[in-house]
Amino acid sequence: MSVFLSRERRRLAPYAPGEQPRGEKLIKLNTNEAPYSPPQSVLDAVSAAAGGLNLYPDPEGAELRAALAVYHGVSPRNISLGNGSDETLAFAFAAFGGAEAAFAFPDITYGFYPSPAALYGVPYTEIPVDASLKIRAEDYVGIGKNIVLANPNSPTGEVLPMADIERVAESNPGRAVIIDEAYADFWGSSAAPLTKRFENLLVVRTYSKSRFLAGARLGYAVGDEGLIGDIETVRYSFNPYNLNSMTLAAGIGALKEETYYKERWREIAETRDETQEALRELGFVTTRSMANFVFARHESVPGAELMACLRERGVLTRSLGRERARPWLRVTVGTPEQMKTFVGAAADAIKTYCS
Amino acid sequence: MSVFLSRERRRLAPYAPGEQPRGEKLIKLNTNEAPYSPPQSVLDAVSAAAGGLNLYPDPEGAELRAALAVYHGVSPRNISLGNGSDETLAFAFAAFGGAEAAFAFPDITYGFYPSPAALYGVPYTEIPVDASLKIRAEDYVGIGKNIVLANPNSPTGEVLPMADIERVAESNPGRAVIIDEAYADFWGSSAAPLTKRFENLLVVRTYSKSRFLAGARLGYAVGDEGLIGDIETVRYSFNPYNLNSMTLAAGIGALKEETYYKERWREIAETRDETQEALRELGFVTTRSMANFVFARHESVPGAELMACLRERGVLTRSLGRERARPWLRVTVGTPEQMKTFVGAAADAIKTYCS
Repeated sequence: MSVFLSRERRRLAPYAPGEQPRGEKLIKLNTNEAPYSPPQSVLDAVSAAAGGLNLYPDPEGAELRAALAVYHGVSPRNISLGNGSDETLAFAFAAFGGAEAAFAFPDITYGFYPSPAALYGVPYTEIPVDASLKIRAEDYVGIGKNIVLANPNSPTGEVLPMADIERVAESNPGRAVIIDEAYADFWGSSAAPLTKRFENLLVVRTYSKSRFLAGARLGYAVGDEGLIGDIETVRYSFNPYNLNSMTLAAGIGALKEETYYKERWREIAETRDETQEALRELGFVTTRSMANFVFARHESVPGAELMACLRERGVLTRSLGRERARPWLRVTVGTPEQMKTFVGAAADAIKTYCS
Repeated sequence: MSVFLSRERRRLAPYAPGEQPRGEKLIKLNTNEAPYSPPQSVLDAVSAAAGGLNLYPDPEGAELRAALAVYHGVSPRNISLGNGSDETLAFAFAAFGGAEAAFAFPDITYGFYPSPAALYGVPYTEIPVDASLKIRAEDYVGIGKNIVLANPNSPTGEVLPMADIERVAESNPGRAVIIDEAYADFWGSSAAPLTKRFENLLVVRTYSKSRFLAGARLGYAVGDEGLIGDIETVRYSFNPYNLNSMTLAAGIGALKEETYYKERWREIAETRDETQEALRELGFVTTRSMANFVFARHESVPGAELMACLRERGVLTRSLGRERARPWLRVTVGTPEQMKTFVGAAADAIKTYCS
C-alpha cells in the first residue's frame, strides 16, 4: 500500500486465484477447468477474428448478445457481456450495492464475492450454510438485502431447487437477487427463464467451465431490462470495450456446438459420480456435487495437508482457507484417466499419512 | 435507471464510444485505429494460444510483463496489465481518487476520464487548455491533485515536453501524476524512463493504436512499485483474470516486431503531415499533431456538420461534443489512398456547403 492510495481503498480484499503452474508437469484439478480443448470450429473462429484486430471490437457485442438471446429465449436487451463472469459480478456489486444497500451470501461459497464488495464500499453479511454445507433458502427469504447465490454452489456442488430461488426472489422485491450459474450446465437447470417473471432476478453465467473457454474470459448476465441497463451503465463507465474481438468470436462459435458440449457434459458428470463413489469407498465423506468438481474430506487428513500430499504426487487440487471448509478438499473432474491417478494418489496419501 | 441502482451510482457518466459500423462500406477514420493488420507472427501467436483456452490464463501475466520490463528497462514489478488502457486508467482512478483526493485534467482531452471518476466517486477539475488548444504545464504545477495528462493529447495531437512533465510530477509529490501515452509511439518520446525518478509518476500505454491491436484490448502501466502495487490490489479486487490468453500471446508477439512497427509509424507520420498540409491548402486550420490523427477546423463548416457531410461521402470521422471543440473535426490517419479520398471529400464538402 503506497502513500498515494486513497482513503476509500484502504480496506480492499483482493482475491487470491488458484495456482496456475508454469512449466511444471502436473495434473491440474484445482481451478475447475475442463480437460478438453474447445471444438476446432471455435479455434477457427478465433483465428479468423485475429486478422481484424487493428479495429476496435463492437462495444455492444451485438452479434453475440443476439445469439445468447436466442439461446435463452430472451431479447438482446436482457443480456450484458463481461470479461469473465467475475467482471459481470463486480459490475452488479457496483450497480446494486452501496452503504445503504448491503449484500448477503453464504459463508461457504465462491471466495471472490467479498472482493468487489470491498472495492465498491458495500457492506455484506455471510450467512452460514447448514451442517451438511447446504444453503437454506429460508435464511434469505424477505431479508431486504441484495443476495448472491451460486447454484450449484462452489465449493460444495450442492444445488438449490428452482422453487427456492423463486421464494427468495419473490420475498425481496426491492433488492437484486443474483444467481451465479458458473456450473449450471453440468446440472442442466437454469434460473434464466425465471428472469421473465422476477424483475429483480439476475442470472450470471460463464464460458469458463462448461464451454471450455476459461482462457478466453467470457461471462454474461441475463435479466430484466432494468437490471441489465444498470449493469450496462456501469460497464460504459468503466471500460466500454470490455470484450475483445477474439473472445466475441469464440462465444458465438461455441453456441453452435451444443451437441459437442452436451456429450462432454454427460461424460464429465459420469466421471464425477464415479470419482465420488471411489472416494467414499476410501472412507471419504463427499457432498452431493452436481458440478464439474467433487468436494470431499477424510478424517485422517485435513484439506490443506491432503492438497500438499497430492501435489507431491503430481496432482494439483484446492483446499479453501475458511475455517469450516478446512477439513475439505475440492477436486476438479478431469478425464477418467486423470481421476484414476488422483484416486490412487489420494488412497496412497491417506494410507501413509502423507509421509 | 432501475429502482435497484444504489444511491452511490445515480450520477454515473457512461462514455459514448465512436461508431463501429457493421456491414456498411465506409472509410473508417473515427477511432484512431491503424489501417494495417498486425504482423502475421502476431496472428500465429493468437492461433497457437487458442488451443489452450480450456485453461485459465496466467493471472500475473508474468511472461508479458517480463517482456515489457525489458522493453522499458524496468522490473516486472513496475508493470501492471489492463484489458485495454481504459481499464488501467479506471484502476488508477479507483486507487488514487477519493472524496478527499480529487483529479485534474484538461477540458479538451480524452473524453473517458470523467466516466471512471464518476464511478468511483472522485471529484475532478477540468483545466482549460489555452487558446491554441495547448496544455499549459504551469496550470498543473503544485496543485495538490491527482493529474491525468494525455501526451500527445487527444483530440489535438499536441505534445507536452518532458521537462514540463518533470515539473508537474516534482511539484505534486503527494499525488499521482498519470501520463496517458496512447499515441506516444507516433511521436517517439515516452515519460516511462522518468518513473525511476518520480515515485508518483505513472505512465499508461496501449497496444490499440501503435501496435494495431485495438481489437485485442491490451494496455499497461509503468511506474514505481508502490503505485503499481496499489493498481494490482484494485485489479485483484475487481477481476484477477483480466487478460485472456490470446491477448497475452499477441502482446508478447508484437514486442518481437519492432522493425515492422517502426516502419509503419514512420509511414503514418508522413501521411499525417501530408494530410495536414493538404487541409491547410484548403483553408483549414490544424493543430500540430504528433499522433496518428489530425485535428482541423474550417470557418465555413462546424465539426458536426462536416462529419455528417463526410459520412454521406463514405468517410467516417469524429466531431467532439464539448463546446470549445465544436468547430473542430478529428480525423484518423489511414493509408495514403484513404487520406486522398478524405481530402477530396472534405474539399467537396466545404465547396458545396454540404448541399
